[in-house]
Amino acid sequence: MTDTSAAHGVGMVGYAFMGRVHSQAWRSVGAFFDLPVTPVMAALSGRSGDRTAAAAASLGWAAVETDWKDLVARDDVQIVDICTPGDSHAEIAIAALEAGKHVLCEKPLANTVAEAEAMVAAAERAAARGVRSMVAFNYRRVPAVALARQWVAEGRLGRLRHVRAQYLQDWIVDPQFPLVWRLQKDKAGSGALGDIGSHIVDTAQYITGQSLTGVSAITETFVKERPLAEESAGLAADASEGAGETGTVTVDDAALFLGRFSGGAVGSFEATRFASGRKNAMRIEVNGELGSLAFDFESMNELWFHDHTLAAEEAGFRRVLVTESGHPYAGAWWPPGHGLGYEHTFTHEVKDFLEAIGEGTDPAPSFADGLRVQRVLEAVADSAANDSRWTPIP
Amino acid sequence: MTDTSAAHGVGMVGYAFMGRVHSQAWRSVGAFFDLPVTPVMAALSGRSGDRTAAAAASLGWAAVETDWKDLVARDDVQIVDICTPGDSHAEIAIAALEAGKHVLCEKPLANTVAEAEAMVAAAERAAARGVRSMVAFNYRRVPAVALARQWVAEGRLGRLRHVRAQYLQDWIVDPQFPLVWRLQKDKAGSGALGDIGSHIVDTAQYITGQSLTGVSAITETFVKERPLAEESAGLAADASEGAGETGTVTVDDAALFLGRFSGGAVGSFEATRFASGRKNAMRIEVNGELGSLAFDFESMNELWFHDHTLAAEEAGFRRVLVTESGHPYAGAWWPPGHGLGYEHTFTHEVKDFLEAIGEGTDPAPSFADGLRVQRVLEAVADSAANDSRWTPIP
Amino acid sequence: MTDTSAAHGVGMVGYAFMGRVHSQAWRSVGAFFDLPVTPVMAALSGRSGDRTAAAAASLGWAAVETDWKDLVARDDVQIVDICTPGDSHAEIAIAALEAGKHVLCEKPLANTVAEAEAMVAAAERAAARGVRSMVAFNYRRVPAVALARQWVAEGRLGRLRHVRAQYLQDWIVDPQFPLVWRLQKDKAGSGALGDIGSHIVDTAQYITGQSLTGVSAITETFVKERPLAEESAGLAADASEGAGETGTVTVDDAALFLGRFSGGAVGSFEATRFASGRKNAMRIEVNGELGSLAFDFESMNELWFHDHTLAAEEAGFRRVLVTESGHPYAGAWWPPGHGLGYEHTFTHEVKDFLEAIGEGTDPAPSFADGLRVQRVLEAVADSAANDSRWTPIP
Amino acid sequence: MTDTSAAHGVGMVGYAFMGRVHSQAWRSVGAFFDLPVTPVMAALSGRSGDRTAAAAASLGWAAVETDWKDLVARDDVQIVDICTPGDSHAEIAIAALEAGKHVLCEKPLANTVAEAEAMVAAAERAAARGVRSMVAFNYRRVPAVALARQWVAEGRLGRLRHVRAQYLQDWIVDPQFPLVWRLQKDKAGSGALGDIGSHIVDTAQYITGQSLTGVSAITETFVKERPLAEESAGLAADASEGAGETGTVTVDDAALFLGRFSGGAVGSFEATRFASGRKNAMRIEVNGELGSLAFDFESMNELWFHDHTLAAEEAGFRRVLVTESGHPYAGAWWPPGHGLGYEHTFTHEVKDFLEAIGEGTDPAPSFADGLRVQRVLEAVADSAANDSRWTPIP
Repeated sequence: MTDTSAAHGVGMVGYAFMGRVHSQAWRSVGAFFDLPVTPVMAALSGRSGDRTAAAAASLGWAAVETDWKDLVARDDVQIVDICTPGDSHAEIAIAALEAGKHVLCEKPLANTVAEAEAMVAAAERAAARGVRSMVAFNYRRVPAVALARQWVAEGRLGRLRHVRAQYLQDWIVDPQFPLVWRLQKDKAGSGALGDIGSHIVDTAQYITGQSLTGVSAITETFVKERPLAEESAGLAADASEGAGETGTVTVDDAALFLGRFSGGAVGSFEATRFASGRKNAMRIEVNGELGSLAFDFESMNELWFHDHTLAAEEAGFRRVLVTESGHPYAGAWWPPGHGLGYEHTFTHEVKDFLEAIGEGTDPAPSFADGLRVQRVLEAVADSAANDSRWTPIP
Repeated sequence: MTDTSAAHGVGMVGYAFMGRVHSQAWRSVGAFFDLPVTPVMAALSGRSGDRTAAAAASLGWAAVETDWKDLVARDDVQIVDICTPGDSHAEIAIAALEAGKHVLCEKPLANTVAEAEAMVAAAERAAARGVRSMVAFNYRRVPAVALARQWVAEGRLGRLRHVRAQYLQDWIVDPQFPLVWRLQKDKAGSGALGDIGSHIVDTAQYITGQSLTGVSAITETFVKERPLAEESAGLAADASEGAGETGTVTVDDAALFLGRFSGGAVGSFEATRFASGRKNAMRIEVNGELGSLAFDFESMNELWFHDHTLAAEEAGFRRVLVTESGHPYAGAWWPPGHGLGYEHTFTHEVKDFLEAIGEGTDPAPSFADGLRVQRVLEAVADSAANDSRWTPIP
Repeated sequence: MTDTSAAHGVGMVGYAFMGRVHSQAWRSVGAFFDLPVTPVMAALSGRSGDRTAAAAASLGWAAVETDWKDLVARDDVQIVDICTPGDSHAEIAIAALEAGKHVLCEKPLANTVAEAEAMVAAAERAAARGVRSMVAFNYRRVPAVALARQWVAEGRLGRLRHVRAQYLQDWIVDPQFPLVWRLQKDKAGSGALGDIGSHIVDTAQYITGQSLTGVSAITETFVKERPLAEESAGLAADASEGAGETGTVTVDDAALFLGRFSGGAVGSFEATRFASGRKNAMRIEVNGELGSLAFDFESMNELWFHDHTLAAEEAGFRRVLVTESGHPYAGAWWPPGHGLGYEHTFTHEVKDFLEAIGEGTDPAPSFADGLRVQRVLEAVADSAANDSRWTPIP
Repeated sequence: MTDTSAAHGVGMVGYAFMGRVHSQAWRSVGAFFDLPVTPVMAALSGRSGDRTAAAAASLGWAAVETDWKDLVARDDVQIVDICTPGDSHAEIAIAALEAGKHVLCEKPLANTVAEAEAMVAAAERAAARGVRSMVAFNYRRVPAVALARQWVAEGRLGRLRHVRAQYLQDWIVDPQFPLVWRLQKDKAGSGALGDIGSHIVDTAQYITGQSLTGVSAITETFVKERPLAEESAGLAADASEGAGETGTVTVDDAALFLGRFSGGAVGSFEATRFASGRKNAMRIEVNGELGSLAFDFESMNELWFHDHTLAAEEAGFRRVLVTESGHPYAGAWWPPGHGLGYEHTFTHEVKDFLEAIGEGTDPAPSFADGLRVQRVLEAVADSAANDSRWTPIP
């Protein structure tokens, strides 16, 4: 029986798309990984009491709060999991850290660099007291992405030359898709750039082990007015209301940028919600002197590897099914070829977070890693606003 | 809050590979589907008290039994979930049904047609008393497979001409892989034929809506002697023991057969554990007068569809990502492009089973469907033993 | 300048699909390969004087004959290239060989084993006099297929376990497609079996270096009556005539068979013209103890290779683009990644044939190889007619 | 018999990689297409008499010149085909046009905008006298690319949003690969940018029917010094000479740029010779409001099409094999599924050129189209040299 003395209560803020998948991770992680601390799904907070209670019942949270401050204050909560839109991350995270609660915060870390800097400062103060914090770039926990990182770190690609990263979706191609919160700058901070561009920036820096040092960018809002909608917290649009009223889209639909990495590679990045037919194509290819790697989240159990040290006559991109017991995370699950899904990236994320808490180490990606991504996003926006001029990353 | 008056206690027999994934299904299903009855993970049975207790703690079962008869007898168990090897299915299932417990039984239904017939008889008696039974051909619950069935049933493929089904694995290519229970006829009934061949037979009959009427077959055991091993309950081999002792492999390594379907299509089937590099390639292609479908479990979120009614100049196999809200099961999960994994086929399976219980209907695949598969397997074995002669399915 | 003393006149019989692509091969081969003898496109024969003359003008043949016997008799013809339907192969080939002409004969070698045996006898008599013969299984000359053969011969796959070969087309899925010569047994000998099944039999035996020792088979004619059509010599149907008259299809639409190879591997074969959406999917996969290979002619510049000796964590099927200078035939053409097409298999074929003539060696595949294929086809037909019973290949 | 009164003598300058493939096109085109004028391979010019004579013999040219001016002056030459490096294009093309010869000129049109402008002026003067000119962007003649253009022109993609174009090669990844002429600015004008970047610029403008209006760019030379080599005219390196002497690479290894199109789409472009494992990956994807298209030259017989007007549940990228008789160019060749190769893009190119000559129309891409590409290349180089600043295309 699990040592209940190590039980840690989790309090989650928000129960929409991210809240649902985080719940599944907290619920499942203990059955697959030996953990130094046991998560207990203690409490869920949301603004509407009725809806939060219904969500808690369905998702398996023991208690309900309607003010996140009350959640943070609960004695049975040692971990705060922030699943709200970006505009509230800084306030909640800083309060929770100050209250001595470990914090897992959804990405992007914040909507501005200033907020992110404040969060990093809070995280550093907290770390000095043994309180842990982590930003939820879940794609690092795709086994194939973790394997890519491992092989690059081992030098199997040699000197890196190219990074080619795309995050392609198509959920707002239709101009009649309504003006949900993700299309409003005050809530979302930015559009494709922050929402999905942040993922490819983090993933590229993670896999390469290098930082972006500068960018040149363009952004575009293809559809500038959209029907108003009752607010929708996720990707799905509510039925549109209000007899033809429209509102202005205040974020980017697409962001494209070129960049240079600290180790000499060049990069091409593209994040868009207008790539018809591409549903969740989070793709990255890295070309090095000794080999290449390619990944597409739409086929998330595959990593393609080209070993350039082989004779040309027998070389080629090989499809490695990342489901072997020796692959990152995969050994905890099923036999080879029995793939994982989207949700398992979150199971791996909370597993790593819980291990760091139990072992007293700082988990990655840290808030500082999140700030690093935020600085890139800001540089992209600045370059795009400034004639695409080359914009260094501080 | 879920109506706890509808709670149904589940008792599971066996906790190896199948037991682990069934546990995850029971644990998760309520968070994603509105269910008429609520499963409660009541008790787990296994022969070793210590190991069963450890498994129950890790997998989340409330109580432990060391004799499956005691599990079946528990008042808090309304559903018995059988995850043992095939040689014990008949006894447990029949006892549970007689005791008025709903039964979910792993595939293949039994090791012989005779056992399967007895199980069907028990299931029919039970059904008359409102007791439900189902055989766990989980691949029917891959959203892409369910979608394939739907499109065939809608007539989108027209008259069917060809079925091409393969289940390719490679886990015993190495002659030093030990003699685990799955390679012993007394435990497993047969080798690749029953273990994975049963899946493609069921899937082919399910998608086409037709029955196999006859077969011609060959089987082969490539490696006839293997090192003895401490028994292993799953696919993974224990460290081999016993200083070079070997034992005889008494099951087939591969089974290949041709067949004809009740609606006029011809089929080619192949199940093997010797296809180097193929990890869990459960594949099926169906060609019809109006279109074709192709599926490979190694890319389980994809269904390939060729619409032969389009002009030839614009026709071709299209990769449908089966993650849209309108796709079978998919709406309960994540946005488009955020794929599912192996385990979710079981979540869907118990969801359908619980719905049938709640609605008072008989779930599919029934034990009779399992018997139908068993008859095909027997005909395959008979044909292979009889000069590949054409062998009708009764 | 090429040594014109080594010039060899070519006389070709037939100018439909095969004649056109052979012409392109004879026309081009000298510009890409250093040849010991130079082919000269001397004469073309066909029954209709006008149409043959037009074809000769367009395809580049210097003279025209309306009787193949006159073509064979020409002093300026040293090589006879037979591109007619199978029912005339034996007569023409034997006459040409008796006349001392080297013979390249389209596949299948003949429509019956008896004819093929007579051709082999003639070829052996001719070989004793230095006259060469070859059957045109052009798929052996796909660089990827030749590379597959090379790797198997080098032992890179180890002991072979499985061969999985399919030739899938869809050109007669429509029941209104007319009754062209390829659907008439007296002209074509058989249907999918001889036309495309012969290719996969030859390719499988070539790549494995093993012979099929027996088969079990079924064949099917899905559409038994078709509209009459003015005769069409190729795959394309002429406009149908005759106000709704129909005729009986006397050949198979599909042939499926299982087989065993002399080295212990088992095989699954399927040839069909009813696989909607598959245009020219000549596919073969070979699984061995040390690795696997997979090929699909629809992507003819690719060979997929799985190296099973690598650690499982880094193994997987790799896509080798067979366009490197060190690959079979490829060095004569373009830089890596600049692929070849269907016609080049014929260019390679005549190159190998001319080299054999120049070097005084017997080219492969020989008529004896063609006979070996013919015996397999006959065994398939016999098994299908005899309850799928296992039928040994003599 | 072809009307020899319409015979046009062709004189070709240069016989390296491009000369070989052009020769094959001139040799073959008449056998597959009904042409208003018949090409006659009249004369080849090259600087070395011996080597040119050997090339002419092998490639099938009737006569030899060692000065291109003599070739242009020949009475039996009506068409001049320029296959030399870019530094000589302007001089030869202008002279030929002034002499009244039709001109087919390899890409990029010239090494500088100034040269290209002079060539356009000469082409316009010549056109007024019925003399035709064309620049050899052969990728327009891939059937799949021509089909993509057709579908975009028909409006099947609706308003275009994204263009994603890459030309990825890896032939100089090895730092020991020698300093061939393509790495020297005085010969080649630029590196990856002009050699392969020009192709994706032309292809993108062709398929979209839109012009690039501005760019932001970075370029990179990863390996700045390379071993000296005896000059090599193609991609293959000669054995390196000179005991370790090295020289400076004066061109880019990679060029990346972002752009905007006249119709509102945004584009991401990348041309590199350092993408390990990518051999000739000329790729383009276009996303529009109603659908998407994707192409990769490494699989040149395929066009991937997503029809966004279908229900989401049945939509997806479909692989159209562009080998149907109704597809551009394909009807002249083989049955469906029997693919074409790299060389056929040139056969199609000379076919279109000869048709324009015969019909008295101006072929495309014109020298003006070539100039338009040249202006984009210059803007890319300017932006890269100027802090990636946005640079309008005149």
